[in-house]
Amino acid sequence: MDFREMMDSKYRDLLVSYIKDESEQALYQGQKFSRKSIEHKISPEDIISLHKYLMIDLYPDLPEHVVKSFDILLEVMMGYGLAYREHQSLRHVQQ
Amino acid sequence: MDFREMMDSKYRDLLVSYIKDESEQALYQGQKFSRKSIEHKISPEDIISLHKYLMIDLYPDLPEHVVKSFDILLEVMMGYGLAYREHQSLRHVQQ
Repeated sequence: MDFREMMDSKYRDLLVSYIKDESEQALYQGQKFSRKSIEHKISPEDIISLHKYLMIDLYPDLPEHVVKSFDILLEVMMGYGLAYREHQSLRHVQQ
Repeated sequence: MDFREMMDSKYRDLLVSYIKDESEQALYQGQKFSRKSIEHKISPEDIISLHKYLMIDLYPDLPEHVVKSFDILLEVMMGYGLAYREHQSLRHVQQ
């Protein structure tokens, strides 16, 4: 299992666990997941895309308006990912 | 209407418009929205929070698992917002 598959599987577990019993533990694991994914240069839009994919996979009867709403969220988050990467390359140039 | 209220209203319009007819125009407006919100230092977790709020408001019968799933997404995105702000303050120190 490569890093990406491992992250997908980890995020699936987090979602399932939190939706099942709203445990604080799952939220805490969410913070750890976030640190790891940032370290491995996973973009914020990749996270939205994964979230959408997993919700459709876990809930095949997910309402169409929910599925579509993720596309707008994805589009907006792409701007955040781009701004972050630009920031990083500017810093790289400055160093 | 202050900037924040204006952004909330704009994002609501984007969601409604895209969910209604999946127009490319709404996706394009999403990119513009993103640039504006980054300019005004709206964090990525604020966007997730707004998305959650508006989906509940627009669809009062939104399934509980969808509502809960946003909490995990929010937790993960908080890490991204934090990393971005740390990056900005590091750059500020370097300048």
